[in-house]
Amino acid sequence: MQNDALSLTFSALADPTRRAILARLAKGKASVTELAAPFEFSMPAITKHLKVLEKAGLIERSREAQWRPARLQAAPLKDVSEWLERYRTFWESRLDALDAHLKGDRPN
Amino acid sequence: MQNDALSLTFSALADPTRRAILARLAKGKASVTELAAPFEFSMPAITKHLKVLEKAGLIERSREAQWRPARLQAAPLKDVSEWLERYRTFWESRLDALDAHLKGDRPN
Repeated sequence: MQNDALSLTFSALADPTRRAILARLAKGKASVTELAAPFEFSMPAITKHLKVLEKAGLIERSREAQWRPARLQAAPLKDVSEWLERYRTFWESRLDALDAHLKGDRPN
Repeated sequence: MQNDALSLTFSALADPTRRAILARLAKGKASVTELAAPFEFSMPAITKHLKVLEKAGLIERSREAQWRPARLQAAPLKDVSEWLERYRTFWESRLDALDAHLKGDRPN
């Protein structure tokens, strides 16, 4: 387990339940009970997923109320997006990339 | 360990050495020896990283020669980019996102 920020983010995203939780939070804050509802998981299992997301900075849990709603935090996703940018040329112009590969050059 | 394609991709990216290998391959194909050179890892350790990247479809290893060069395959990164898009509004217009959060609506 790597502990640099980007690795923590990718690791947190490597689970369909955690991605589904983020998709739910994109619609607005939610409690653990609300987040658990669509899944066949126990509350402790959901709480564990929330802790992974929180450690990666992808959610923030409020102290505001007993139900401690979770909120999406997008800053780590922005970092992922910036990391991805350098590879965009590879999928947006595959012929250029292929050409560059054959030449052994960096595509531009 | 989740085995859906997106989880495999995120999991493969959750390691700085594997991301460094991809960055090297963005410059052109390379052999295991070439890929191992910048790192303080044994060849078997690098080979193990390559297997993770290959399983996620992020690289392809050629059968063309004894040195079996590895090449970047960007299709899984395109999938990551498409997955990220739905969250772009959260980091590009934070005030809008905050407003949507407060209203409990999906931001647009």
